[in-house]
Amino acid sequence: MNYDALLAARTENMKASAIRETLKVASQPGIVSLAGGVPDPAGFPLEIIRELSSRVVDKYPEAAFQYGPTEGFPPLREVLSDRLRESGTNVDRDELLIFSGSQGVLDALGKVLISRGDKVVVETPTYLGALQAFNAYGPSYVCIDSDENGPVAASLARALEQNDVKFVYLVPTFQNPTGRTISLERRKEIAELIRFHNVLLVEDDPYSRLRYEGAHLPTLKSMAPDHVVYVGSLSKVFAPGFRLGFAAAPGILARWLVIVKQGVDLHTSSFSQALAAEYLAGGHLDTHVPRLIERYKPKRDAMLKALDLHFPSDFKWSRPEGGMFVWVEGTKGIDMDEVYKRSIVRSVAFLPGRYFFARDGEGRETMRLNFSKADSDSIEQAIRILSEEVDRGSRRSVLAG
Amino acid sequence: MNYDALLAARTENMKASAIRETLKVASQPGIVSLAGGVPDPAGFPLEIIRELSSRVVDKYPEAAFQYGPTEGFPPLREVLSDRLRESGTNVDRDELLIFSGSQGVLDALGKVLISRGDKVVVETPTYLGALQAFNAYGPSYVCIDSDENGPVAASLARALEQNDVKFVYLVPTFQNPTGRTISLERRKEIAELIRFHNVLLVEDDPYSRLRYEGAHLPTLKSMAPDHVVYVGSLSKVFAPGFRLGFAAAPGILARWLVIVKQGVDLHTSSFSQALAAEYLAGGHLDTHVPRLIERYKPKRDAMLKALDLHFPSDFKWSRPEGGMFVWVEGTKGIDMDEVYKRSIVRSVAFLPGRYFFARDGEGRETMRLNFSKADSDSIEQAIRILSEEVDRGSRRSVLAG
Repeated sequence: MNYDALLAARTENMKASAIRETLKVASQPGIVSLAGGVPDPAGFPLEIIRELSSRVVDKYPEAAFQYGPTEGFPPLREVLSDRLRESGTNVDRDELLIFSGSQGVLDALGKVLISRGDKVVVETPTYLGALQAFNAYGPSYVCIDSDENGPVAASLARALEQNDVKFVYLVPTFQNPTGRTISLERRKEIAELIRFHNVLLVEDDPYSRLRYEGAHLPTLKSMAPDHVVYVGSLSKVFAPGFRLGFAAAPGILARWLVIVKQGVDLHTSSFSQALAAEYLAGGHLDTHVPRLIERYKPKRDAMLKALDLHFPSDFKWSRPEGGMFVWVEGTKGIDMDEVYKRSIVRSVAFLPGRYFFARDGEGRETMRLNFSKADSDSIEQAIRILSEEVDRGSRRSVLAG
Repeated sequence: MNYDALLAARTENMKASAIRETLKVASQPGIVSLAGGVPDPAGFPLEIIRELSSRVVDKYPEAAFQYGPTEGFPPLREVLSDRLRESGTNVDRDELLIFSGSQGVLDALGKVLISRGDKVVVETPTYLGALQAFNAYGPSYVCIDSDENGPVAASLARALEQNDVKFVYLVPTFQNPTGRTISLERRKEIAELIRFHNVLLVEDDPYSRLRYEGAHLPTLKSMAPDHVVYVGSLSKVFAPGFRLGFAAAPGILARWLVIVKQGVDLHTSSFSQALAAEYLAGGHLDTHVPRLIERYKPKRDAMLKALDLHFPSDFKWSRPEGGMFVWVEGTKGIDMDEVYKRSIVRSVAFLPGRYFFARDGEGRETMRLNFSKADSDSIEQAIRILSEEVDRGSRRSVLAG
């Protein structure tokens, strides 16, 4: 059969991502990988999971294993909306929906909102997984400029004035890939802009509980509740393997997300949801997150220290107050794909930054470095090796220039 | 905000399904429900799940909780492809992909294959969840006739001759909603037709292991491997709450399903997959399925006996050799929505059959009866009550006619 002839038109927007091959290589044994965006498995709460699994069998012998409501397992919806309220984001239990990872929310939002050609505003750079989810629905991206405080308000204002925008997509706290956080002042400006232009904003917030220093910032959802779909995840604070994300969507959008989700997977794993409900209700999140912070902060410090020590002084990198990533911007002309090819030979992997740009050809001089997975010593060594390959790359671009 | 104005054009095909409200009512306490398509929770292998949960923590302390490959958890892919081979369907391990329920496969197939207006051939009636998954992508349905041996070959032949068909969707064994099974002879005819017309067929097969009598039949996949995407599920033989389905897709279709799935949920719950891998590899499926058959067969018998005893002799109903459903076709003029309204007052629920017809207005005289959930005594009583309401409905339609 000629299977190619069967493909839907939309697959043209969805060409196989080279990043998958990159990450496959990076995950091979013996490689020190700063490439993935994955938690340190040593931080998984294994004994708690073992105990809770048994408890869930006793407590929910039917509901944890049966088909369940598309909206989510009621005890999980309850405890999650309580938690959001406690941290200042008022979310109704009925408004809160459980999805199969925050990726599931992004796909459902794309399906509910994007008609081919609709304009979606994204940061530069932005989260790759969101582009992958949205691309299936054929949006046109409006890219706005960012600085160290997040998306520049004037750039967002211009985008909203000049375009009929379907929605704005932002990762405000410890962004993937840059690690940057939108400042309080900038948050206020953005909230005002989306209210003034009466435009919807998707706030993707998987990392905010992993804060190693500085003060907790209010969510955009709390500042413009009717204009923001809040997207959260338990992947970074429980375990990603459970595939648990959630959304709080205003008005009829919640109902449409449910209709869409029913066609996609009926509902998220009941057992995963019941485990998470027990994890949260039992206070395990509160004891576990400080342990994760204790684990990740020294790794971030080790990475920043090694970058300060080894990387070229004309490179710039972010100094994230939390999350899992440092973002490096090299000098003009350097090609991080080339640096990647050489560093992988020396058993060090990172992610070339160009994957995170909605416009082709941008970001060739950038790299995303993950500090959550490897240990501090490996991070130090890996950064040293990367600095040598980066130096060779810089010399080449100077010679070529 | 005017959220309605934000909805994508495709939502027009996806109007909120009345079935959700029907099922919500049906699941209220005190109702004897023959409405859902759900397993008997008393059949969940709870002690095995408890034991396997602990074993998975020990055996896969990293892989069961970390991000994993989109294709699926390798040990599960291996054991599932082995099992399919053992039962006569040769499937390569690389061809076999794990999804979040078979619903996840149907959604991904829709996304990969259906451009707006593409023609999809479906049985009359067909599985509602498939329509829900496909509708988001805007297909046009070509409905073929069925008899007690499944879709009529001449009707399929005509559909394939007269239309440029993207794919054919069938549930060949113990179909949802009719419980009917395509006979061996008919399978041969269908396989020959799809090879002759060189058309793709999706074989949805969640129920075939729940066979209470009669001989195992070969899958369409085994008869036309290059032309069939095989779709399976562990919901009926392990537990639906884990949301585990799988697909074996030929050629580049497998790769495209993976690309699509990555945007939808990255991968299916690793913990669920690891549990299922242990369940299958440990031989628990082989001991559990006979227990399920022992549990369900008497319920099916009770339902058929009660129908024979109480239902009007001019009604027809299927006599399924397995699965979970009996399908009733009433005499012309009866409206099962009206019967539903009256029966729910008497605490008995079923599903009006019209939901399973791709064409609006068809099937008003049909009903789907589930026998897996309720116990035999409740089934007997429920059928007696339904027969009284059906009689009243028949008398009304005669008076009105």
